[in-house]
Amino acid sequence: MRIMRAEQFDLSREVEYGTPEQNETVKAVVDAVRSEGDAALLAYTERFDGVRLDAASLRVTDAEIAAAYERVEEDFLEAIRAAAANIRSFHEKQMRSSWMDLQPDGTVLGQILRPLKRVGVYVPGGKAAYPSSVLMNVIPAQVAGVPEIVMVTPPATGGTEGIDPYILVAAAEAGVKEMYRVGGAQAVAALAYGTASIPPVDKICGPGNIYVALAKRAVFGVVDIDSIAGPSEIAVLADETADPAYVAADLLSQAEHDEMASAILVTPSAALAEAVAAEVDRQLADLPRREIARASIDSYGAALLVDSLEAGIDVINALAPEHLEVLTADPMSLLGRIENAGAIFLGPYSSEPVGDYFAGPNHILPTNGTARFSSPVNVDDFLKKSSLIYYSREALLAGGDKIMTLARYEGLEGHARAVELRLRRERGEG
Amino acid sequence: MRIMRAEQFDLSREVEYGTPEQNETVKAVVDAVRSEGDAALLAYTERFDGVRLDAASLRVTDAEIAAAYERVEEDFLEAIRAAAANIRSFHEKQMRSSWMDLQPDGTVLGQILRPLKRVGVYVPGGKAAYPSSVLMNVIPAQVAGVPEIVMVTPPATGGTEGIDPYILVAAAEAGVKEMYRVGGAQAVAALAYGTASIPPVDKICGPGNIYVALAKRAVFGVVDIDSIAGPSEIAVLADETADPAYVAADLLSQAEHDEMASAILVTPSAALAEAVAAEVDRQLADLPRREIARASIDSYGAALLVDSLEAGIDVINALAPEHLEVLTADPMSLLGRIENAGAIFLGPYSSEPVGDYFAGPNHILPTNGTARFSSPVNVDDFLKKSSLIYYSREALLAGGDKIMTLARYEGLEGHARAVELRLRRERGEG
Repeated sequence: MRIMRAEQFDLSREVEYGTPEQNETVKAVVDAVRSEGDAALLAYTERFDGVRLDAASLRVTDAEIAAAYERVEEDFLEAIRAAAANIRSFHEKQMRSSWMDLQPDGTVLGQILRPLKRVGVYVPGGKAAYPSSVLMNVIPAQVAGVPEIVMVTPPATGGTEGIDPYILVAAAEAGVKEMYRVGGAQAVAALAYGTASIPPVDKICGPGNIYVALAKRAVFGVVDIDSIAGPSEIAVLADETADPAYVAADLLSQAEHDEMASAILVTPSAALAEAVAAEVDRQLADLPRREIARASIDSYGAALLVDSLEAGIDVINALAPEHLEVLTADPMSLLGRIENAGAIFLGPYSSEPVGDYFAGPNHILPTNGTARFSSPVNVDDFLKKSSLIYYSREALLAGGDKIMTLARYEGLEGHARAVELRLRRERGEG
Repeated sequence: MRIMRAEQFDLSREVEYGTPEQNETVKAVVDAVRSEGDAALLAYTERFDGVRLDAASLRVTDAEIAAAYERVEEDFLEAIRAAAANIRSFHEKQMRSSWMDLQPDGTVLGQILRPLKRVGVYVPGGKAAYPSSVLMNVIPAQVAGVPEIVMVTPPATGGTEGIDPYILVAAAEAGVKEMYRVGGAQAVAALAYGTASIPPVDKICGPGNIYVALAKRAVFGVVDIDSIAGPSEIAVLADETADPAYVAADLLSQAEHDEMASAILVTPSAALAEAVAAEVDRQLADLPRREIARASIDSYGAALLVDSLEAGIDVINALAPEHLEVLTADPMSLLGRIENAGAIFLGPYSSEPVGDYFAGPNHILPTNGTARFSSPVNVDDFLKKSSLIYYSREALLAGGDKIMTLARYEGLEGHARAVELRLRRERGEG
């Protein structure tokens, strides 16, 4: 692992929007599903996934879900249930209520919160299918009160049995009752516009490959979408009290995700940096995903030296990492200065996998520096607000002239007259 | 105004993403400002706005703002101050705090809320410049605690005096201290990537023409953006107790915005529909913006007849209007069933302009049916969340095995080992 001064590290980021060819493909798929519905959906499923389905076999049956339960191990089921309970409990604390502001003149203003009506969760197929991510997408929607939560996931060759039973069980445990075996841009288009078999949704969330990401971007505005996830990142801010083995293990737990993943140590201790670099090499040796993790560490990993923990915080805020671990003698003394991070893990027992799987907070976090302005997936993502205005006669009489003044300065006489008409009536002028 | 059965009305919507040529232009502008900074910004300002500036004159000076105060009338200043106070008061009620969940085993989980650090507000020039919209964009950011709020607005020919004094005063009243005379896609690019004169922001909001909208879409991911606004809409749900003159005036106050604006009456009363249609014609006759309003009513306006108010609610929920007025004998009896609307105005004194200018709730609302999943501009738009995880030794000992189980089922051995290493140490195994 490179050890370098923090000033020498390149913080710049790129946003990837796909090649023109990928965009063209996605546009064609989305347009076709929009205009031809199921016929296009089934044709693309045959073409891209190599699976021939008919409209009647798109939906996963209750019998298939029951069969999936038979195929997963008891320890998996226990663990996923415990994780789901923790995730639900944390997200329930995010829930908010509609509220009213009652004014003495009789005016009532308010903010009404309602769940979205129907949400589609995309779950990728193959090795990118993570049961934990199913929980992290579905449970916040469920806690928000979304009555219809739909999962789509691509079929694998072999038909019915092709869907990972762990995914089916995770979805069922999270409370999904409607699942379809479709994936790719065609599934996103079906969720956005609806087909005869799949009614349209209000929001699409969940990770996918570049075609899925581009399709989500293409249908944004017809439906809401979640953010487009980039490669995963961890930054560890540590001082000389940190255990180098813990730091190395946590960096590697990020690096093993993806060759593009980034794992960065920020420390004022050159000794710690050396020890962590040595531990990384040692632990890499027998890690099953060592080739991926090694590529990640070599390309995007680094130990960045800073003059002080305070200077380290500045580096962290500029990085705006998806995950931040603080492994220092007194992590709470730094918390107030951390401005940008998706999830903050404090102290030696808060290893990143604790948050990835189990503690309760969401593991879908802003990547690629977007923690400057984005948030973990949360219940608010599945609620929408409406303003409520019940204006009283007294309030209109008191404020009406000012409203007309502002409307007329903006050249909107019709606005002024809508108020004037009422003021005249109420003042007995006509 | 057309009177027709609701079933015959076309509810379908299109999302407009600009022509390929417009997208090409925007891409070129954004790329040039990104790579060349101020030089490109100034060159495009000369080319598109016809105004030759240098970097030193981009920023609006305090003297210019003071001069703007000299140019606006006292009644405007009084009205905008009263409106700002109401808007601030309503949005302060939206503010939330960071919270913690303290668990008996010593674990602390939490959600940290922080304001974005720097926000850019785009204000269009010319006749699309609305002081009220400046308040509606700036005040929620200010209430959220955003320390740096920047306004950009295009210069008009004539240099300094070109910026509307009402806009400068509204921005100053809302608390903006940093204003630049740039507009168009070049201003959006400058806000996203920064130039020598204009430091980059974390979020760009505010309305603009198609080039501004496309530029915002292009920089999304580098910074956050607000939603892309479509044409404005009102729906009025009314029964036979409604005053046809009020209904007509409120429909016209929407129709006068834009030829693409939509004003729709939904009612079970054919008599009311007839009376409103007659009133619309009568009031249109001497409305200053009658050509725009007439075009809007002819193309997008309608009185839709339904069998009952309940059936009317179904039409409203399918429309998901930006503004909804309920002018019925007992509007509260319908409120609980209204699922989709940006702002809901109840009763005869809650004319839409009350909300557009004065009551306090935001007038920047989801358009084009996006009230199904989007919200009025609000304080949350300028806050971001971070998760906090302080996991205790006891919690890790209790849950560690389940975490490892889940990680191993997902094939992420590095995740399992980061936990296993700690469990072994704590259990005295290594």
